[in-house]
Amino acid sequence: MARKIRIGMIGYGYWGPNLTRNFAELAQAELVAVADQDLNRLNSVRTRYPNITLTQDYTDLFKMDLDACVVATPPQTHYTIARDCLEHGLHTLVEKPLTLESKTSFELYKLAHERDLRLMVGHTFLYNSTVRALKDLIDEGEFGNIFYMDAVRVNLGLYQKHCDVMWDLAPHDISIFMYLMGEVPNTVSASGGSFLVPNKHDVAYLSLSFPSGKLAHIHASWINPNKERRITIVGNKKMAVYDDLQTVERIKIFDKGVDAPPYTDTFADFQFSYRYGDVISPYIDFIEPLRVEAQHFVDCIVNHWTPLSDGKNGLDVVRILEAADKSIALGGATVECSQYSLDEEVRVPAAI
Amino acid sequence: MARKIRIGMIGYGYWGPNLTRNFAELAQAELVAVADQDLNRLNSVRTRYPNITLTQDYTDLFKMDLDACVVATPPQTHYTIARDCLEHGLHTLVEKPLTLESKTSFELYKLAHERDLRLMVGHTFLYNSTVRALKDLIDEGEFGNIFYMDAVRVNLGLYQKHCDVMWDLAPHDISIFMYLMGEVPNTVSASGGSFLVPNKHDVAYLSLSFPSGKLAHIHASWINPNKERRITIVGNKKMAVYDDLQTVERIKIFDKGVDAPPYTDTFADFQFSYRYGDVISPYIDFIEPLRVEAQHFVDCIVNHWTPLSDGKNGLDVVRILEAADKSIALGGATVECSQYSLDEEVRVPAAI
Amino acid sequence: MARKIRIGMIGYGYWGPNLTRNFAELAQAELVAVADQDLNRLNSVRTRYPNITLTQDYTDLFKMDLDACVVATPPQTHYTIARDCLEHGLHTLVEKPLTLESKTSFELYKLAHERDLRLMVGHTFLYNSTVRALKDLIDEGEFGNIFYMDAVRVNLGLYQKHCDVMWDLAPHDISIFMYLMGEVPNTVSASGGSFLVPNKHDVAYLSLSFPSGKLAHIHASWINPNKERRITIVGNKKMAVYDDLQTVERIKIFDKGVDAPPYTDTFADFQFSYRYGDVISPYIDFIEPLRVEAQHFVDCIVNHWTPLSDGKNGLDVVRILEAADKSIALGGATVECSQYSLDEEVRVPAAI
Amino acid sequence: MARKIRIGMIGYGYWGPNLTRNFAELAQAELVAVADQDLNRLNSVRTRYPNITLTQDYTDLFKMDLDACVVATPPQTHYTIARDCLEHGLHTLVEKPLTLESKTSFELYKLAHERDLRLMVGHTFLYNSTVRALKDLIDEGEFGNIFYMDAVRVNLGLYQKHCDVMWDLAPHDISIFMYLMGEVPNTVSASGGSFLVPNKHDVAYLSLSFPSGKLAHIHASWINPNKERRITIVGNKKMAVYDDLQTVERIKIFDKGVDAPPYTDTFADFQFSYRYGDVISPYIDFIEPLRVEAQHFVDCIVNHWTPLSDGKNGLDVVRILEAADKSIALGGATVECSQYSLDEEVRVPAAI
Repeated sequence: MARKIRIGMIGYGYWGPNLTRNFAELAQAELVAVADQDLNRLNSVRTRYPNITLTQDYTDLFKMDLDACVVATPPQTHYTIARDCLEHGLHTLVEKPLTLESKTSFELYKLAHERDLRLMVGHTFLYNSTVRALKDLIDEGEFGNIFYMDAVRVNLGLYQKHCDVMWDLAPHDISIFMYLMGEVPNTVSASGGSFLVPNKHDVAYLSLSFPSGKLAHIHASWINPNKERRITIVGNKKMAVYDDLQTVERIKIFDKGVDAPPYTDTFADFQFSYRYGDVISPYIDFIEPLRVEAQHFVDCIVNHWTPLSDGKNGLDVVRILEAADKSIALGGATVECSQYSLDEEVRVPAAI
Repeated sequence: MARKIRIGMIGYGYWGPNLTRNFAELAQAELVAVADQDLNRLNSVRTRYPNITLTQDYTDLFKMDLDACVVATPPQTHYTIARDCLEHGLHTLVEKPLTLESKTSFELYKLAHERDLRLMVGHTFLYNSTVRALKDLIDEGEFGNIFYMDAVRVNLGLYQKHCDVMWDLAPHDISIFMYLMGEVPNTVSASGGSFLVPNKHDVAYLSLSFPSGKLAHIHASWINPNKERRITIVGNKKMAVYDDLQTVERIKIFDKGVDAPPYTDTFADFQFSYRYGDVISPYIDFIEPLRVEAQHFVDCIVNHWTPLSDGKNGLDVVRILEAADKSIALGGATVECSQYSLDEEVRVPAAI
Repeated sequence: MARKIRIGMIGYGYWGPNLTRNFAELAQAELVAVADQDLNRLNSVRTRYPNITLTQDYTDLFKMDLDACVVATPPQTHYTIARDCLEHGLHTLVEKPLTLESKTSFELYKLAHERDLRLMVGHTFLYNSTVRALKDLIDEGEFGNIFYMDAVRVNLGLYQKHCDVMWDLAPHDISIFMYLMGEVPNTVSASGGSFLVPNKHDVAYLSLSFPSGKLAHIHASWINPNKERRITIVGNKKMAVYDDLQTVERIKIFDKGVDAPPYTDTFADFQFSYRYGDVISPYIDFIEPLRVEAQHFVDCIVNHWTPLSDGKNGLDVVRILEAADKSIALGGATVECSQYSLDEEVRVPAAI
Repeated sequence: MARKIRIGMIGYGYWGPNLTRNFAELAQAELVAVADQDLNRLNSVRTRYPNITLTQDYTDLFKMDLDACVVATPPQTHYTIARDCLEHGLHTLVEKPLTLESKTSFELYKLAHERDLRLMVGHTFLYNSTVRALKDLIDEGEFGNIFYMDAVRVNLGLYQKHCDVMWDLAPHDISIFMYLMGEVPNTVSASGGSFLVPNKHDVAYLSLSFPSGKLAHIHASWINPNKERRITIVGNKKMAVYDDLQTVERIKIFDKGVDAPPYTDTFADFQFSYRYGDVISPYIDFIEPLRVEAQHFVDCIVNHWTPLSDGKNGLDVVRILEAADKSIALGGATVECSQYSLDEEVRVPAAI
């Protein structure tokens, strides 16, 4: 039997315990050590996993013959720690966002490429059974030609210390949109409001344009009376609503739409026909997304695959957020995302 | 007893029958005549109101010793017909939008001012019991300081022949926002998509900025799987959701919010406290908005009041839509609304 | 072209205007006269239908060469008036419940049979597109073997003057259950509460047993905070919820159930398997039920068909309500429905 | 500082781990030992609580100088094990239902009384913050005079091996109703269906009558397409719906009702007036019910209080279920609950 992938966890805050639990339960992985600056957190690791090595200094992990590290520290530390991991020859899974600047994200992406290491970003929704079911439906042509997608991700709190609501919540929807659309937006127009802390957006609206002409819009808020997590997909054949807060009927597919006449001019509207059909909520066998993500990271290491949410994907999300920041500063003007390219690149598609 | 206000109706299409019914039932008004180019429609008037004069030529109405006209024709005809009415000395109620250009809206507004005639625009939601209840709550300070408002007004269809989704649906939310906020936005940033007919938006997103720093956002769509009519109001003391499709509990007021510490810096976040309290749906004694609107028009004529939705209000909505069109053309860049002003103006506040 | 079916309407109260409108719009029928004791109501008929004969004395209708009468008077008058109509050789549609005693219902049923007249009861839900879609699904075997059905029909008000909540609301569910099940319950157990007026139930619970072993339960209430109109159908293959208050997705069909092992004993439970599948809301092209009902009455007259909700069906509903009354008086004990039978009967199945 | 209450846990199946966790975390208690026949389960205890004594034979617990035992074994074993605990002088908390016969429940109740031991039954909902908030509202007169309560507790599965749906689910609603009403029902009428396993009800309907004239009704089902957990409370002043599946707005209080005229006869109905007012969802600070329950058990031991859900309360629930079984066998006839009484009894009211 093959040697297990030896993994070290850096950061045991909000997401750390969930990542730790999932990696600890993977058959092909061995969780060797956990690093966190906070002693209380380390004690809490000890209670649950008495046999794991604990340290306050993550650089100790580089002496433990590890294969990979998982970085779940605050965003502003991602770049330094992930670079350190890659430079020590470790495959690296970094929580989203990859870094806080496209320049540093690109640097990590390039570094991983040069060292032939797996760099993966924790865009969890790409490993979510519901999102994957939607992706399958889209790829099977169920929706026909996609027109646009709309995301609402709002709630009351939790304010993040080191980033605004856009950097906190929008990465989820941006990664979902790119995955479902199968393309990367090239321009962004955004607006936002800072109501509780000066210069820190607690509400943001982003409009993304894709090369194919498709649109996507995101409403993110930390100050909204209800919690909502909803994505609407509008195609010319069918439409769907994905409500992530539902425990049942999480996706509803509407067999309805508007059929424009083949030849359209400004007087053609009256020939429009509206289709109304069944509404279907497909049954989805839901698996914990973090489990799928953890398994995928290990599979990519073992099989030398390119992760679905690889460094390039992480860079794309950061490029878009960076452009959105610039657009807000410009009062909503359309901003093109920065361009980066590797000299050469070979991507080995992954299976999940 | 005073002479009844003699009213003529121009246009008997989608809204016409509802306006006709409401004016016909007002004690202080007498519906004298209905004009429409379509004979079938006129026949349908005759069946219900056998004693009303009918004509295919609206200029016939100018010979009938009327006091006022109601213009419910397609938007592109509003300017010409309303001007004609005002020039014939008639008080005029025009369906929204007032006209399709701020220039012509201003002209009507000015004309009515010069002739001392009531010019009113059919921004129905200002006469909606639920919106008025929200206005009262806001004015009583129930929500504290308002941060922002968000409107979603989406459904499948109905495509309008002569305007896009923004000119069709957004006037409702713009007029509601101005009414609730008590101020007029000065800049707009907007984006939109034209998926079924080239150059005609079927989806639009508008971000409005108000002089006080408040924000408002509108999502309007003709191609959405579900019908939604929802406005969210976020204040520092309370928040509310107004769902116009509910038959009960149309408003929910959430006694919750985030209390920032008095002195805030980037490390202050952890001192944020979240308040969670009761949710209240106040009982609202709902009256048909069109009835209130019709009554208000007659009251303004009788009492020489300035209508709540007067020509200036109609002009404001058109100025904002015009700026939004320009913003979309510029890729979302912030656009200032055009400025117009009358040399002198005396507004007599109205009671409803 | 055939002579139109000449119809007289008796009673113009709550349901009368709706019935009148639907019969007035039928191509094969001619609404000749309306009788009501209340002059105000007759005036309101005149406004809308200036050419219809009006009378305060329903026996005037017997001199007008009519083919049929529609009886929409208060329940306690149904027996006398319907008998009068039948004795005058008129086909008769009576609002539900047919009468207030099984004995008199049987008498009407027998009378119609002897005179070869169509006697139909206004069990509107049998002409409701949603209920008919459920019936089709059941008949196609979509639900497998039906186990039981459960109905909740509750709201606040409206108290009826001449009957209790059970006689007011339960006829709907009883007729729906008999239609969907394809059989007539033989026993009833019921309980009820009289909270506002002594000896007049404002809350009632009925358990119906069918010869096949199927069960059905009805919860009817005039004093409930929310309005609910919901029927649940449980079969061994699929289950459904029909919520009559929804404007969309009125039926939801759940592809789920429990599969018991073929051989079951007290230890077999752990072998139960639960099936979870898609949820489907079939699109239903909804037609006003009263229109279908009115058309059906005329069709049955023209074609000599037995109405779907014929006198026997009306009698069955009354027999069940009568048994339920007896059961409540006995403290819930199971009561068998009274038996009646005609000497001979030929039923000509109807098409809708 | 006082000695901690030394507790032994018997049974580590479905509820056992939750009870164990809560007792383990109580400051005034010490969880000394866990007994279960299943070695795998004991191993799972060891992983989480390495310092607790484990045994497959619960009688070992009687040698450990314990103060109390918690019995969370299958219902059919409750009587024997609880009696054994009481006879060994231990305070005893038994999962619901107390036993499967009123006779044996009475015996335990009497035994605890004679030995002056705390006997408590795990009617968890009496320790549920939402139910307690409702109780407070009722006691404050918020609802006025209560008319009736209605409970729906349905879902698909989970079939219990040793009891039917009524003994599985109805104890919750019976205990809630007795707590909220402040009285014990004296008669029961019930019906049920056995669709998957012969003679084992998977659907049951219970009508409970209280001495004061109040009614309550329970619908329990293991074969229903949707999971529902809903209690409706109808009073003459206000009404409420408690939906236990909601994460927010779990209780809604409706300020509405019907006001009957003081003097009522059959013609008085038209004087009924319907009140419609605000809907309020009070904020509830929710604490895990099992934590409150565990704390209460320990408090009752320490303070010599009578538990809220004491042996008498457990006996009452069993008496009602027994009567319901009898009623189903009799076809729904009203059955009086068996009567038991202690020669003397002193109850010391508890505080929570």
